[in-house]
Amino acid sequence: MAKEIERKFLVRDDAWKSNVTSETRIRQAYICAESDRSVRIRTKNDETALVTLKFGTDLLVRDEFEYSIPIDDAREMIGIADGHVIDKTRYTVDFAGFTWEIDVFAGHHRGLVIAEVEMQSETDDPKLPAWLGREVTGDKRYSNQALATQRSRPGLVHAL
Amino acid sequence: MAKEIERKFLVRDDAWKSNVTSETRIRQAYICAESDRSVRIRTKNDETALVTLKFGTDLLVRDEFEYSIPIDDAREMIGIADGHVIDKTRYTVDFAGFTWEIDVFAGHHRGLVIAEVEMQSETDDPKLPAWLGREVTGDKRYSNQALATQRSRPGLVHAL
Repeated sequence: MAKEIERKFLVRDDAWKSNVTSETRIRQAYICAESDRSVRIRTKNDETALVTLKFGTDLLVRDEFEYSIPIDDAREMIGIADGHVIDKTRYTVDFAGFTWEIDVFAGHHRGLVIAEVEMQSETDDPKLPAWLGREVTGDKRYSNQALATQRSRPGLVHAL
Repeated sequence: MAKEIERKFLVRDDAWKSNVTSETRIRQAYICAESDRSVRIRTKNDETALVTLKFGTDLLVRDEFEYSIPIDDAREMIGIADGHVIDKTRYTVDFAGFTWEIDVFAGHHRGLVIAEVEMQSETDDPKLPAWLGREVTGDKRYSNQALATQRSRPGLVHAL
């Protein structure tokens, strides 16, 4: 079991693109998504796949259990799942001792870009890059779960 | 992905006990349980554990994906899960070329005994042992999902 502690921001501009250290195409869908738990299927580069079970209502810290599964199983389950599939490319950028993940959404949420930093403890205080926009930590509208289950575009992407 | 095809019965008497070939203590809980999907955590003999994702509304044939997970993770998730935990001992009995599983429930559903036979195809026609009671295939009240989520005892155990 891993604790997940993260801060999440909108992204102001493309300055982060010059420091990308990795790039991963992600497709994911939720098998279930309730207020206090979710089960998610994710594929990476259409090569590897994970099932992730998350518990807890605290948006900053949650219990998370994650297991590798066969890619063919994942493809089939994503095809079955309700809600639309989230399709995004995740870039990583190192900044001041922390690794930032920048998710550039395609498909249904095209235009949305979200940056996340994962912390080791709640007292970690990562320095914030200049390309960040408004912080959306705890804003449920930007949770992957909300993005996967809401039917319309968030319409929030411009509110930096 | 495995297809699950099974018939399910109540059990009339204890005659099956003289032919038991295996015995497994099972504890399980549902992470989510909707009409067309469920995610279940199960431990066997408190030694091994599985996460199982099932899809489809047909009670006879369902898509099922199952993965081994660490026993400590399973214990923790069963502790978090809603609904009561199903606690039962599963015995296997071979009869006329088919393996029957007899679930003897403890805890909340003490007194309930259910026999299941798994078939290779829907056209298989297993011979029925004399110790079977009423068939309950397709009776949602006897699904593990219903037994895990309903708050009161089924009260149906005597209706053989």
